[in-house]
Amino acid sequence: MTPFKLTDELLAEIKQLIENQSDASLQSLLEEVHFADVAEIINELNKEEATYLIKLLDSDKTSDILTELDEDVREGILGNLSSKEIAEELEELDTDDAADIVAELPQEIVQEVISEIEDREHAKDIVDLLRYDENSAGGLMAKELVKVREDWDVLTCVKEMRAQAENVTRVHSIYVVDNEDKLKGRLSLKDLLTTSTKTHISEVYIPKVDSVNVNEKPEEVAKIMSKYDLEAIPVIDEIGRLVGRITIDDIVDVIKEEADKDYQLAAGISQDVEADDSIWDLTRARLPWLILGLFGGAAAAVIMGGFEEMFRRYTVLFLFTPLIAAMAGNVGVQSSAIIVQGLANDDIKGSIGDRLIKEMLLALLNGVILAALLLLFTWIWKGDFLTALAISISLIAVIIVAGFIGTFVPLFLDKRGIDPAIATGPFITTSNDIFGILIYFLIAKLVLGI
Amino acid sequence: MTPFKLTDELLAEIKQLIENQSDASLQSLLEEVHFADVAEIINELNKEEATYLIKLLDSDKTSDILTELDEDVREGILGNLSSKEIAEELEELDTDDAADIVAELPQEIVQEVISEIEDREHAKDIVDLLRYDENSAGGLMAKELVKVREDWDVLTCVKEMRAQAENVTRVHSIYVVDNEDKLKGRLSLKDLLTTSTKTHISEVYIPKVDSVNVNEKPEEVAKIMSKYDLEAIPVIDEIGRLVGRITIDDIVDVIKEEADKDYQLAAGISQDVEADDSIWDLTRARLPWLILGLFGGAAAAVIMGGFEEMFRRYTVLFLFTPLIAAMAGNVGVQSSAIIVQGLANDDIKGSIGDRLIKEMLLALLNGVILAALLLLFTWIWKGDFLTALAISISLIAVIIVAGFIGTFVPLFLDKRGIDPAIATGPFITTSNDIFGILIYFLIAKLVLGI
Repeated sequence: MTPFKLTDELLAEIKQLIENQSDASLQSLLEEVHFADVAEIINELNKEEATYLIKLLDSDKTSDILTELDEDVREGILGNLSSKEIAEELEELDTDDAADIVAELPQEIVQEVISEIEDREHAKDIVDLLRYDENSAGGLMAKELVKVREDWDVLTCVKEMRAQAENVTRVHSIYVVDNEDKLKGRLSLKDLLTTSTKTHISEVYIPKVDSVNVNEKPEEVAKIMSKYDLEAIPVIDEIGRLVGRITIDDIVDVIKEEADKDYQLAAGISQDVEADDSIWDLTRARLPWLILGLFGGAAAAVIMGGFEEMFRRYTVLFLFTPLIAAMAGNVGVQSSAIIVQGLANDDIKGSIGDRLIKEMLLALLNGVILAALLLLFTWIWKGDFLTALAISISLIAVIIVAGFIGTFVPLFLDKRGIDPAIATGPFITTSNDIFGILIYFLIAKLVLGI
Repeated sequence: MTPFKLTDELLAEIKQLIENQSDASLQSLLEEVHFADVAEIINELNKEEATYLIKLLDSDKTSDILTELDEDVREGILGNLSSKEIAEELEELDTDDAADIVAELPQEIVQEVISEIEDREHAKDIVDLLRYDENSAGGLMAKELVKVREDWDVLTCVKEMRAQAENVTRVHSIYVVDNEDKLKGRLSLKDLLTTSTKTHISEVYIPKVDSVNVNEKPEEVAKIMSKYDLEAIPVIDEIGRLVGRITIDDIVDVIKEEADKDYQLAAGISQDVEADDSIWDLTRARLPWLILGLFGGAAAAVIMGGFEEMFRRYTVLFLFTPLIAAMAGNVGVQSSAIIVQGLANDDIKGSIGDRLIKEMLLALLNGVILAALLLLFTWIWKGDFLTALAISISLIAVIIVAGFIGTFVPLFLDKRGIDPAIATGPFITTSNDIFGILIYFLIAKLVLGI
């Protein structure tokens, strides 16, 4: 399989075909293209072109395309569709995807759109899903699943399952519930393939099944599913009733979003932005961290101003402030990154105290090696051993403190229930710059006996 | 479901039970614990305790436990097992997991272990998998899959499938091949549930199926599977023959590893390490980047040394070098992170030129806002408008250059086929420190007319 590649030529051709209203050519050109790839194309079109294509193609394909589009593009297209047209798209979608789209619609048209959905069961399921917090298992789950009652015989069961399976894209597991809809266990598809059709459900079902509560956080669901290699997990409500099912494709999205978010926070980008977003969106995501850095730099300048006298006599000390600040920043980012990642992967065991002692030892080891190199360099360059020694000893102290801050702050935030990822990147580099420079001058002053 | 939590008490209890050789208590204690959780426990035991537990528990559970263990722990345990015992574990595993373990065994015992595997088909499949590069689709795939021939009738097909399904944990799709084993299409499980058993294969199969070549990179497979929401993908060799299948659980691991690697590179950690690794491993992963930072800092010191004369007259300029270096670093990291992430997600469209112009505009916008703040601060603090102006204008120039470097370097590396993630973090901050300081002094000199 050759991955689809959106070229400028293809895009120009499609824009031309839309302008010429060459419907037949467009349909045959896009017929073999996967909906995820058509979504990529539509993301590059303007609102009118995009709407034209959506109205032209079959609703079983366009509904899937809609779920894959960038949010602003989708919003633009839906604004051009009637409530009936939107309802037709929702009809084709699984309840979780449909509910996500309904949640984005302007409040005033939601009721009308829902009332236009012909399949009333489907409409009811979508409305049910709307009441769950987006940031919970309930907000991730779909209503589509295959479930059988433990008191059914296999014949009823197979008949019911066939009907249910029609609405479910991927069956995965057959869940077994009691007469109050409480989750009891599961039947595996493999069992279905390999067991005689005469058997009774209560005799063959597996009474153990992993499930998550409807209020569980998506990151927790992701951890459970990836740790236990699950491809689908049933969701139960507060009294154990089976209310939905989460599939691994949604979890893959959660894992990628979490990773992207942590990566962006570490780089000092505070909102979910992409390279193709507007300059304004990118500025809003980046500027606050830069302003933090500016304040930090101003604080460092004020601190250094306090040492101006020393500075006139030992100019060489000042030449190394960027080095000291950079090392403090680098060590801090390394320490905090490894803690943030460890927390995300549940790898951090033992007490904060042990962790800090380990980081101190690590910083000491790195610090001594780096200080030795710096000592040699400065001594050779400036020919003044005492100053070189003062700078090097300060470097060790700065690295140890930077490692301490980088380790302690994310652990502390995590204990307080705050996302430790915000403590990486600019936050750590800025605070370490300030502490680093202060420690540097204080220790240098001490060693040089000024 | 309450997620399993490994407590110090539980660990102490297990260690005690092992010491007392209380086999029955251990078995009943661990019976209900998921293998992934038992692996977590064993990771905390010493080699002898771990081996004791592995020998005690059933091999259908211990084989799965082995795949989940940390590599060094697994190596220790396998070193304590005989070739026959290892073969028994491999017997229970899917071929991909078994091949991964065999690949870790010392070369001299591989042949003996393989020869002890009773199921010769299984042994042959494992050996087949050993020849694929770990970093390819072939290295990820398993041999377990369900395939039927297009010229079979449904009765033969169902009979064969039942036999095959016995060896396959999750069926997903039924692949259709021709008489040369070339992949032709698929039968969906849903079709199987909803189609009459009288139908002929060639009439019902779907002649379109996504597949990947055996030499494809794991990251590409991950992109394809997550973009198209696939839960399993067949792997074909150079002439189109079906040779294996990759399932989404392996891809989830690939996605997490990729994200972890990029995150660590951005933080200046060059090898795959975890918070619980030894101080030595952590040092090897971190020290090289710190040495790079040290060289950068030394270069900055030399550059600043060249401006010593200016510095005696305009001391205030020097107070702001940490601020300038920090801003250059922050902007560089932001720009490079968004490019690296965009490249990883295939979000980057258009030419490098357009991208650079956009980043310049963004840097200009941010730069002007930040420079205005800095101008105010410095003017008020030092009461010297011209100096404040010089520093602020320099800041704008530094931010623009930093944005340029941060955008250009990863795009350039990517074009050259080098992982752009290495250009984030310490690499960008160090080079931006140097360029930033140089630009700062040059422009300040110009503005002040020195």
